[in-house]
Amino acid sequence: MKAIYLDSIQKLSERDIPTPVPKAHQVLVQIKSVGICGSDVHYWHNGRIGSFVVKEPMVLGHECSGVVVESGGEVKGLKRGDRVVIEPGEPCRKCEYCMSGRYNLCRDIAFFATPPYDGCLLEYVVFDSNFVYKIPDEIEDFGLATLAEPMAVGVFSTSRLKPRLGDRAIVFGAGIIGIACMMAARAVGCKEISVADIRDERLAKALKMGADRVINLKSERLPENHYDVGYDATGADQCYALAVQAVKPGGRMSLVGMGPDMQSAPLVEYVCREINIVTSFRYANSFPQAISLVKENKGRLEEFITHRLPFDLKNVERALHTAFSDQSAGKVVLDFA
Amino acid sequence: MKAIYLDSIQKLSERDIPTPVPKAHQVLVQIKSVGICGSDVHYWHNGRIGSFVVKEPMVLGHECSGVVVESGGEVKGLKRGDRVVIEPGEPCRKCEYCMSGRYNLCRDIAFFATPPYDGCLLEYVVFDSNFVYKIPDEIEDFGLATLAEPMAVGVFSTSRLKPRLGDRAIVFGAGIIGIACMMAARAVGCKEISVADIRDERLAKALKMGADRVINLKSERLPENHYDVGYDATGADQCYALAVQAVKPGGRMSLVGMGPDMQSAPLVEYVCREINIVTSFRYANSFPQAISLVKENKGRLEEFITHRLPFDLKNVERALHTAFSDQSAGKVVLDFA
Amino acid sequence: MKAIYLDSIQKLSERDIPTPVPKAHQVLVQIKSVGICGSDVHYWHNGRIGSFVVKEPMVLGHECSGVVVESGGEVKGLKRGDRVVIEPGEPCRKCEYCMSGRYNLCRDIAFFATPPYDGCLLEYVVFDSNFVYKIPDEIEDFGLATLAEPMAVGVFSTSRLKPRLGDRAIVFGAGIIGIACMMAARAVGCKEISVADIRDERLAKALKMGADRVINLKSERLPENHYDVGYDATGADQCYALAVQAVKPGGRMSLVGMGPDMQSAPLVEYVCREINIVTSFRYANSFPQAISLVKENKGRLEEFITHRLPFDLKNVERALHTAFSDQSAGKVVLDFA
Amino acid sequence: MKAIYLDSIQKLSERDIPTPVPKAHQVLVQIKSVGICGSDVHYWHNGRIGSFVVKEPMVLGHECSGVVVESGGEVKGLKRGDRVVIEPGEPCRKCEYCMSGRYNLCRDIAFFATPPYDGCLLEYVVFDSNFVYKIPDEIEDFGLATLAEPMAVGVFSTSRLKPRLGDRAIVFGAGIIGIACMMAARAVGCKEISVADIRDERLAKALKMGADRVINLKSERLPENHYDVGYDATGADQCYALAVQAVKPGGRMSLVGMGPDMQSAPLVEYVCREINIVTSFRYANSFPQAISLVKENKGRLEEFITHRLPFDLKNVERALHTAFSDQSAGKVVLDFA
Repeated sequence: MKAIYLDSIQKLSERDIPTPVPKAHQVLVQIKSVGICGSDVHYWHNGRIGSFVVKEPMVLGHECSGVVVESGGEVKGLKRGDRVVIEPGEPCRKCEYCMSGRYNLCRDIAFFATPPYDGCLLEYVVFDSNFVYKIPDEIEDFGLATLAEPMAVGVFSTSRLKPRLGDRAIVFGAGIIGIACMMAARAVGCKEISVADIRDERLAKALKMGADRVINLKSERLPENHYDVGYDATGADQCYALAVQAVKPGGRMSLVGMGPDMQSAPLVEYVCREINIVTSFRYANSFPQAISLVKENKGRLEEFITHRLPFDLKNVERALHTAFSDQSAGKVVLDFA
Repeated sequence: MKAIYLDSIQKLSERDIPTPVPKAHQVLVQIKSVGICGSDVHYWHNGRIGSFVVKEPMVLGHECSGVVVESGGEVKGLKRGDRVVIEPGEPCRKCEYCMSGRYNLCRDIAFFATPPYDGCLLEYVVFDSNFVYKIPDEIEDFGLATLAEPMAVGVFSTSRLKPRLGDRAIVFGAGIIGIACMMAARAVGCKEISVADIRDERLAKALKMGADRVINLKSERLPENHYDVGYDATGADQCYALAVQAVKPGGRMSLVGMGPDMQSAPLVEYVCREINIVTSFRYANSFPQAISLVKENKGRLEEFITHRLPFDLKNVERALHTAFSDQSAGKVVLDFA
Repeated sequence: MKAIYLDSIQKLSERDIPTPVPKAHQVLVQIKSVGICGSDVHYWHNGRIGSFVVKEPMVLGHECSGVVVESGGEVKGLKRGDRVVIEPGEPCRKCEYCMSGRYNLCRDIAFFATPPYDGCLLEYVVFDSNFVYKIPDEIEDFGLATLAEPMAVGVFSTSRLKPRLGDRAIVFGAGIIGIACMMAARAVGCKEISVADIRDERLAKALKMGADRVINLKSERLPENHYDVGYDATGADQCYALAVQAVKPGGRMSLVGMGPDMQSAPLVEYVCREINIVTSFRYANSFPQAISLVKENKGRLEEFITHRLPFDLKNVERALHTAFSDQSAGKVVLDFA
Repeated sequence: MKAIYLDSIQKLSERDIPTPVPKAHQVLVQIKSVGICGSDVHYWHNGRIGSFVVKEPMVLGHECSGVVVESGGEVKGLKRGDRVVIEPGEPCRKCEYCMSGRYNLCRDIAFFATPPYDGCLLEYVVFDSNFVYKIPDEIEDFGLATLAEPMAVGVFSTSRLKPRLGDRAIVFGAGIIGIACMMAARAVGCKEISVADIRDERLAKALKMGADRVINLKSERLPENHYDVGYDATGADQCYALAVQAVKPGGRMSLVGMGPDMQSAPLVEYVCREINIVTSFRYANSFPQAISLVKENKGRLEEFITHRLPFDLKNVERALHTAFSDQSAGKVVLDFA
């Protein structure tokens, strides 16, 4: 089968590798669509993200959907032909994190396209059936289904942030993670959800995705002491300072964005205003709700996918370029034959 | 009666002002001891703390104990002669914060020695009886009783941090707030509590106060991925970076210290390790437990008080000087006749 | 002004009493609509509810809306002409419950139509402005606005039950409280919400109110191990036994219904299945969200009001009779001139 | 090796069976001590507990300690000679409960001495090394170490009950589970802990174990509205009615006791007083803390063990008889050669 490898910085190659065989608890999935994520772009462009360094050739991609073509002997509830999305990390199931329901923190988790683990820009993949979820019929498009992965980030951060019914929310960052946070916040009862960003085209998109208000931080001032909760999906220093004023004392800020290694933030203001900083890393126990969010926001999210390309070496390159440089791009998706 | 005013930066004066008369819900308390807090020193030395600026002459002091000399008509449970400590803020009781149990965030709270409200470096004070607590007989010394106030900071931060039984804890900062956090952490079942600081004499004191281990950050390395929870009682940038490595992924850091306006912190590491930052400002509903902590740690805390001076203008000045410049000083207390 | 008193069991009288004058923190509200609640019916029919006994003549009614006609000197944010609903209890603001945000448990709360406190079946009432909320323009009908009170019961019980996004919920009891729980559960992201009752006409109404499924417990079996959370709005013994099987192990049951003094329940099953029983009494900090729920479910809730009568002695009697004996009645509302 | 089987009600036999061989992730443990639990007595005496029915001969016993004699190839952190206790259930690690940290609710958990799974009244047992914990040196006695199991029940129920620092607690039932709850409550900062029971000899023991106060429910009245939290370790109907009055409004009751199938309880009082009922079943993620509790309460708990018998058929029978009928018995322990 065909697989696209990142050989070194900005160097990709296509290789022919053997199709894997599922173990007893695994399924073999034929990949149908893969969405390009910011982390794919990072690895391709810089060869690393923080302490994760690509030392050996690695297959990129971790947002995928496909069809089950074979099931291991112990697999229940999945059969040949099932349309599925994959939650792209297999944890050890044994460490203190796995034992306490926080498997996203497992240090031995094998996560797609995180060195040294290969991702899903290839034709077939085997995966623990426990992390493979059926796509509901209402989601007809495999490309749309790949959005379950970023949606899971929003669902999980929201489950940690715990907004209350009627809370006003602000989301910094109008990319897909910001949109996911917005949709998850809406789903648990937040009201008057604002999305802030510095690019008008992204804000226009956020409005279409259902934001109650969008705010261009370059030209507009945020209301002060207004929001009960906030999300930062940017990782930009400025947002920490803006957020602490926009959120009411006693509120909470969710951090899901990743910026530079060190950041400048008015932490003393967070203390004086008693605003907790609630972090979340990837997701755990969130895919079923994420798939529901995709289903419920189907019409909107379809529009968020701006580029679709058939899977081959040239197009993977093109997709990474587009995601890297085209500021008006929404989600870029590769479709398999 | 006599009161000591901060007239302007580092200028104090003694004034004779009328003894106040308690309203129906208030008691009149004759002050017996006042502890000097870092914030008193700050106001005296700099005339401000963040956005709080001393514009008019103001009485300093907010850690106090005394004796009830008169009770308003509606007061229940307190009578002339009762030995008491005062929780030094009167909230509005009406705003959304007061209504939801977070009165420490009330924007109209009248808090001792926070501009424009006078503190307790004076002979008599009237206060809402609801925030006046009897001192148990086991605490014989009024000076010791004043420690209920900093202890309440540790109790409250711990109630927000919510350590679990058996959690390993690290405390940055071996001042009275760090000690309060340590004692509160111990009281809710934390184990192997380390205290980190940069001064040996303070660490030696922390050891006497019950730390299981003390770490001088100038010469020793912290264990990595070791603690379940941590407290920062320093406000120093370096501690944010040290803490995120010392605390295990999935852990939590309590911030109680106040440093400079802007701080540098590896927030992306907090996200990747999913370590929440739990802020707390002053305290709410924490004085009864704080008084118990003083009682239970009586022997140790007595030793923490290193300076005691009779209340008068000269000694207030001396007390502020000592607290400001004597690095081996523990708590400095003024005793009233 | 005119007031309707419950003089003794099933004996009502109309009296002419002086119009009250608002204190500084109060508003004078001209009542426009009052909804009849089960507790009004109980007091009227039995003279008591549990340990609450009507010993003196008492005005019934606690679900009301009206118009501000006068404001006390300290009142902010409310003025003559404002259309309002009243959260019908004034707590002491001083006890440990009030101080910790649980004012619904205040033992000195003066709650409408709970002996010895009068309710709102009268023309004018004064009330602490802090518990008086503006009606949004979208809710044009004062009768509809009275539903904010039962909605607050659903909002509060849900805030204590804490369902997660995507949880499946079952509600026992299709009266207004059950409907309120259903709507609140929906608002925080519950899915596949079933309503169970023993009367088809009530279930038909629940379906119109938005239930995903209705179940007549007389003829149908509940799915087992199916729901993540449940609400009991009946107080009937049978529901405790049914619920523990219908809810999945690890789930939670909210109790809002009030039945006989002693009840029979398979508590050992609750333990073995680790299903928590989450109680809630009235509400605290829930009116704003309840008003939003009324606004968002306006069309449906209008239909829930089946009887409207002009306010006078005869009609109050008729309203209580209807609410007591007409099993097809939804909400019965008295409208004032 | 030798194993004692429960063949049918009150019929035990000794059999010679092959010593098991550990799989890669398992250790082989030579049993050193087994404590007799109420559930062992139940199965022996009645052949069933609720829906769990002994249909085939089954080995009893689930509270055990021993020595590792062999480790599977993948086992880390345990080696031949290690003194250990076993957390006696192996969950599936795959279901929604295992994935979310609630493996105690796993429906496929293989739990010692719960039909159809054999227990540990035998000479050697293999077990998933992940659930095998080293005994600290301070606990020299293997018999004492077996108490980690009941202590884990107290630790887990407390982690779900979540008492706050300074909460007053009442424990119904002075058996080992009640004592475990008391010790766990103490460890997380509860104060003024009362233990209530109906037998003076058990109460005398509770006092020795550290209760602040003991109350014989046959002769004494409980204080009303006094406790913040409570534990029921009896399963007796009367305790539900007593508890709801003894616990303050807004408090919480933990249920760990198991009584008859149906119970009579004033649930409406629980609602009116907003007292949550917090259930817990066995334990999850609680053994390390339980072992610490044994260590810290070593002196007291040693005294709780009243009977020790060498392991053989006769003595197992004697142990079950004693635990069943001797009301002054504390824990009965079988010691292996």
